[in-house]
Parts: sequence; structure tokens; C-alpha cells
Amino acid sequence: MASWLQIPKNSPFSLANIPFGIISARSASRAVAIAIGDYALNLNTFASSGGFAQLPEIQPHLSVFGQPTLNAFAALGRPVHRQVREYIQNVFRVDTPFPQVLKENAPLQKDALVPLSEVTNHVPMQIGDYTDFYAGLNHAYNVGVLFRGPDNALQPNYKHLPVAYHSRASSVVTSGTPIHRPNGQILANPTATPKVPAFSPCKRLDIELELAAFVSTPNDLGHPVSINNAEDHIFGVVLMNDWSARDIQAWEYVPLGPFNAKNFATTITPWVVLLDALEPFRSAGLEPGDRDSLLPYLREKRAANVYDIPLEVELTNEGGKSSVIAKSNAKNLLYSFPQMLAHHTITGCNMNPGDLLGSGTISGTEPGTQGSILEQTNGKNPIKLADGSERIFLEDGDTVVLRGMAGTEGNYVGFGDCVGKILPAIKLDI
Amino acid sequence: MASWLQIPKNSPFSLANIPFGIISARSASRAVAIAIGDYALNLNTFASSGGFAQLPEIQPHLSVFGQPTLNAFAALGRPVHRQVREYIQNVFRVDTPFPQVLKENAPLQKDALVPLSEVTNHVPMQIGDYTDFYAGLNHAYNVGVLFRGPDNALQPNYKHLPVAYHSRASSVVTSGTPIHRPNGQILANPTATPKVPAFSPCKRLDIELELAAFVSTPNDLGHPVSINNAEDHIFGVVLMNDWSARDIQAWEYVPLGPFNAKNFATTITPWVVLLDALEPFRSAGLEPGDRDSLLPYLREKRAANVYDIPLEVELTNEGGKSSVIAKSNAKNLLYSFPQMLAHHTITGCNMNPGDLLGSGTISGTEPGTQGSILEQTNGKNPIKLADGSERIFLEDGDTVVLRGMAGTEGNYVGFGDCVGKILPAIKLDI
Repeated sequence: MASWLQIPKNSPFSLANIPFGIISARSASRAVAIAIGDYALNLNTFASSGGFAQLPEIQPHLSVFGQPTLNAFAALGRPVHRQVREYIQNVFRVDTPFPQVLKENAPLQKDALVPLSEVTNHVPMQIGDYTDFYAGLNHAYNVGVLFRGPDNALQPNYKHLPVAYHSRASSVVTSGTPIHRPNGQILANPTATPKVPAFSPCKRLDIELELAAFVSTPNDLGHPVSINNAEDHIFGVVLMNDWSARDIQAWEYVPLGPFNAKNFATTITPWVVLLDALEPFRSAGLEPGDRDSLLPYLREKRAANVYDIPLEVELTNEGGKSSVIAKSNAKNLLYSFPQMLAHHTITGCNMNPGDLLGSGTISGTEPGTQGSILEQTNGKNPIKLADGSERIFLEDGDTVVLRGMAGTEGNYVGFGDCVGKILPAIKLDI
Repeated sequence: MASWLQIPKNSPFSLANIPFGIISARSASRAVAIAIGDYALNLNTFASSGGFAQLPEIQPHLSVFGQPTLNAFAALGRPVHRQVREYIQNVFRVDTPFPQVLKENAPLQKDALVPLSEVTNHVPMQIGDYTDFYAGLNHAYNVGVLFRGPDNALQPNYKHLPVAYHSRASSVVTSGTPIHRPNGQILANPTATPKVPAFSPCKRLDIELELAAFVSTPNDLGHPVSINNAEDHIFGVVLMNDWSARDIQAWEYVPLGPFNAKNFATTITPWVVLLDALEPFRSAGLEPGDRDSLLPYLREKRAANVYDIPLEVELTNEGGKSSVIAKSNAKNLLYSFPQMLAHHTITGCNMNPGDLLGSGTISGTEPGTQGSILEQTNGKNPIKLADGSERIFLEDGDTVVLRGMAGTEGNYVGFGDCVGKILPAIKLDI
């Protein structure tokens, strides 16, 4: 697909993508936008100027584009998202059937097309609840080996259900927000007896490379979402860094799971990529042959239930030297987002528009494919960076960038950068 | 304190209480109200008719009483809550200094005082995040004995930090909402190898008797709430039943904690009792002598950091026969709400108005004082009910009522009933 708008060939936001987000720019208040090439199209401005005149179905809903979150747009449901995305693709095609809408409308281009460099992005949805799954089989295995050895690496439940925990919604931030190293309780000497914790900045600060899906349409309390309908309850996907304080986690997590180790920040990309845009990249997940042994409420019709999206983790030190420290792929998941949603709601749990489902850390099986630093270093075997320095965990001043992009040059469907810089722990007067 | 309004001597809503909630009644939309005796006072109606004319400080904020949640009122901060509560107490005193406001204003009494029997209650705050702690030492010990024996009942971290997990905000419901028994994965034979789950309605459905605190004023991401200020960030307290599916929990909870076992419903009382109303009932928590060994960020100035509130659990079968199956007390907590908040935010985690903090199950040490059925029966030793029947866990048709009331006759400060009836599991077409 070619556009009359100049779109760099390596842009994650090709005409094949059209992801949705929330921007503010030029002193205007927050509004819904899409990203295309190096620009955001402000859909509130676009709608106010009659940009959607050729799409009658959206006319009753134009107010959603002036909202400060995507919740109202998402709640309209997948058929509407599909119409709007395809309409916008048609508007931007080189052979657009509606040249008068934008291609030959210089004043509206000037008003509504804003360079991404001038845009402030915001967390795209008001997140009611954020659930983090553990569907990255290789990650679960790698971490299990570190804690329990290879024979008992995976718990008995792992291949029967997508393990998950509720996580913290309030501290989900958008790409670019700096992250203060958290303070907390750690064991200075984990093998000493009795175990006595110290108050300290986290010394084992880590990343987790994940995808995360936003819920669009809700289900009522007591009424599960069927695996066959689950995909239509998902609005789209972002890239996510679930920052993790491994030393705080190791001390606090028995018996109820991680808490303070995760609640200080989670970074997501600001542009939500619709499932329709990912559709061409469907792929079989891990061990599709085992799916027949799943309980029926988790069985999907298609084996190709995850997506082939190359992912990478880049670490840049305070001096500005960058190193790619891991390359992975989103197909390294044992469970799909529809399976996660079906499992989450099988008890009758109600989901709302804006609820966020993290995939869990996405690791490959080979060295250099792990989505967390812990898996690479085990806290002792350093990663060598391009500048000759080493990392066992993150240091103050480090900037981590996650990237994920499917497809081929000129037609990439990607998330954009998921960026966070580590600032020193805040000194507390206690 | 005596009132000109007739207040039953056994009412939890004496003039000493004045809890806040959200009601709808008489076809009016949701509004803020207080409960007093057998009535709710609609504060939106009251404010619109000049009821607050004698309280100049609240004049700029009167719109908060017309909101559908307490979030805006809570965000005004503790000094404002205190002024409003004390003003309302003055309005209702038999020797009110403002008799013209309500005592001698029959039309406003007719408009704004609604019998509780005609009121619909709603979840009082929009809950952003709900965190459930595990601060009931005796509960943690009792459950630990069942799982690991008496020598290792408590994990090494237990007396150093208030253990917690993030829980599910969307499924918090108000007292009276029926609860469908959840479906899920359970082990039909937990000791068989390999472990193979079955899909089934939960067979071990339980309660958890808890208090829960709502957050009022927020803190910014990266900026912990000091233990010395934490109390002023708490709006008030409700009674909570954290329904628990023990068989689903036993299978799913390793390694990341309870998930589906808790996400199907949590019931709270609709009236938020302010900390000021609980102030006369301050009491030392469990093991106050050990507090000096806590890390400084958790050390409170006062040993009397919890509340002496008698609690009880009543079970009524489908036939209508009631039995009190447990009596406990809110002072059976090792950590206070300010300590929970200080720990929750020590990493920099941001809290918002409406965030909910559960205490964890509140059990005593003697038989008949346990806040969960699991602790009483261990899944095999039945509780005998008044009608001669027995319970190992909850049965369909059972209604559970939690109650909590501090003080003495005529001056009770209580929560009202926290009620939930168990409906059969929904039959699913899978």
C-alpha cells in the first residue's frame, strides 16, 4: 500500500498499521489520534472539519475522538474500529477515493497532521485493572530453572492454564517517562539465618519484555467471555516493559506473589495497534500440538493464535552508547490473548474497556533471546555492552528501549519505541 | 450524644458515627449521603436547600455532593471531612445550634431524609486499584499451619512487612449483591500424579472477614507516603467479605499468588466510616512490643494503631435459619492501615482517591473466632449450624452476613450488614 504522504520506509507506522493513541499538541487538549509515518493525525480536528463525512456509520459517534482516553472509542466495538481504520487507510492511499478529504485539503493537513516530534503522548486508555500473565513459556522455564532446577522448572499447573497475577494499574506510564529506582526491603545476605531485611534502593533492577492487550467491550459480572468471542473483546496491543525489582521480589513474594517489586512503574508504548493490523502476522504459538489437552474453555479453533513479531531490547548507557542486549519474538507465547481473556473471566470476573492484559515476559530459548536481564545473567554472569562495560542488572543512567515490528520494509506494523531511563532512587528522610 | 431524630439504640449509625455513602432513591440520580439511625440524609438535596449555609468552608465544594461516587469529596482531604461530619452531628444534636437547618425544617426533612429501607446503595467510590493485605497474624498462622505445619507456619518476611497482593477492583460489589459460585479449574484428586485439572463449579467456596480502607488524598508516582502522614491519606473504613474459591486457589496460586480464586466477587458495606469516628476505639494491635524491630519507614508513633471493633459472621441457610459461626475483633491485626499505606508506597507507587486496601482476614486464636471457614473446618471438620445441619464450605442458597460494631448501646459506630447470598454456578455451554 502506497500513500501520498511521505512515510519513511523503516517507520513502524506504515499505511498497513494505523495505530490509535491519545495526544496533546499545540496547546490543544487531549484527543484521539492515529500515527502514520512521522505524523499524528488528530482525529478530533479531523472529525470537526468533516474528515469523516464519507463514513456515515461513524457520524453518531464523533464525540469519542474528543475524549482524553480511547475508552469510549474502544467500547464501540471491533466492527467500528475496523471501519475507521480502513477509512483512514483509504484517505491516505495514493489512489484515495476521497482526495478532497485530506490529500488535496492543505488547510486540514496543516491543522490535523502534527509531526510526531511536536506531540505529547499519553497513556492511551483509562486502565481499570491491569493483569499480568506469565504466558512466555521459555521465560517461565528459565526462571524456574534458576529457582528450582531443570527438573521442576515449570509448576504442574503451567501447561493447563495461563498463570497470572493482578498487578498495579495506577503506575502504568507512557514511553519516555523516567523511572526512579525503587526503595524497599531487601536481604543484604539472602543465605544468612535468621533472615533480616535492610532498607535499601533496589540493587537488582530488571526489565520484562512483554506485549499487552487492551480490552474493548465489557462483560457483565457472572458472565464469562467465550473463547470463541474473546478476540472481539480485545481492542489492540502495545509493547510493555514490566520493570521488576528482583531483590525486593525475592524477599516479599511468598506466599501471595510479587507486589512492591512491580508496583513502582510499568511502561507501555502510546500507540495501540489493532488486532486487524496484526492479522497478517498470525503464527502458531509454542506447542500447538498440546492444545488438544487443554480444557475446552481454553481451546481455540485456530492453531495460529499468536503473532510473529520480532522484538528487541536495547540498552544505552549514560554516555550514549547503545547495545542491543536481546532479540526475541512475540510468537514465544504458550497462550494467546483470547485464551488469557477466556481464563480471566471463566469465574465470571467482569472486564471493562481499558483493562490491560500483559503477556508475561517473552523469551526465546537461545542465549541473547531472553526478555529479562535476570535470565541472561542469573545475577552473576555479566552482559558485555558495546562500550566494553558490563551489566548484571540495570544501573542508574541506563536507558532501556524495547522495540517490536512485524512485516517488511515500507509496510511495517510496529509499536514504536518503549523507552525508560533509570534515575537514582529518591533519598528519603527516614 | 442525643439526637432529635429517633435513632434505634442498636443502630450501627448512631450520632457518633455519620458514615458516608452513595445512594439513589425516589428516582433521583446517585448522590452523596450519610446514614443516621434508620435514615439516609441525601447531602445533595440538603446542600441544594441551603443545609450547609452555617458551614462557610464547604461552600466552594458543594458540587461534590452531587457526584455519583465519593471520590471528589474524599479528595478534599481529612480537615474537610472532619468539618462536614462535625457539622452534621451538630445539625442532628438534640441541642443543635442550628435548629432552623433541619430540626425545625419539616419540608427539608421530607425531601432529604430518606428511610434506609427505600434507599439503593452503590459501591461508594470508583476504585482504581484494590490491594489486599494479609495483616491478620492469626489467620496467616492458622492457614500456614494447615499448609506447612506449626513450625513453618509464618514465612520469614511476615513480621517484617505487611504482605499483600494486588486484587481485582472491577468485581467489588456492594452488600446485598448475590454471588454466583464460580467455575474454574480444580484438582478432583489433589494427591494423584500427574496432576490433571477438571473444569467444575468451585466446591470449596469460602469467606474472608476483613476491614478495608479507602484512600482519600493521592501521592505522586515516585513519592512515598510517610508513616507519619499516612493516616491523613485514608478516607475511612468498610467491612469486606473477600470471597475465596479455595480449590481454584490451591491449583492456580503457584508461583504468582491467588488470581481466579479471588476475582469473581468481593463484597463491601456501602457506608464508609471515617477514621475520626473510629478514633475512640483505638487499640494496640498484636505484638506491639515487636514494633521496635520494624524498619523505620513502618514505625508508628502510637502503639494503639488499630481499632477495637467486635466482628461476627452469620450464616443463614436457604430455609432462613441463622447461626453465628464466628466472632472476632478488628484488633487482631499485626499491621495498621497507615503501615499498609507506607509500605505500599515506599517504592514510589502512586495511590489515588478510591484505592481500596483490604486488611486480610481477621481471626482470633480460639475456636469460633476464625474469619474464614477453611480455618474452622480444614475442609473436613464440619461446623454445626443452629438447624442441625453442617457446613464444611458454603452451599448454594447460603447467605453470609458480616457485622462489625464498636462502642456501646445508643452510641454504636458500625458498618451495617455486609451481605451476600450464594447462587448456583452458571451453567456454561462449553
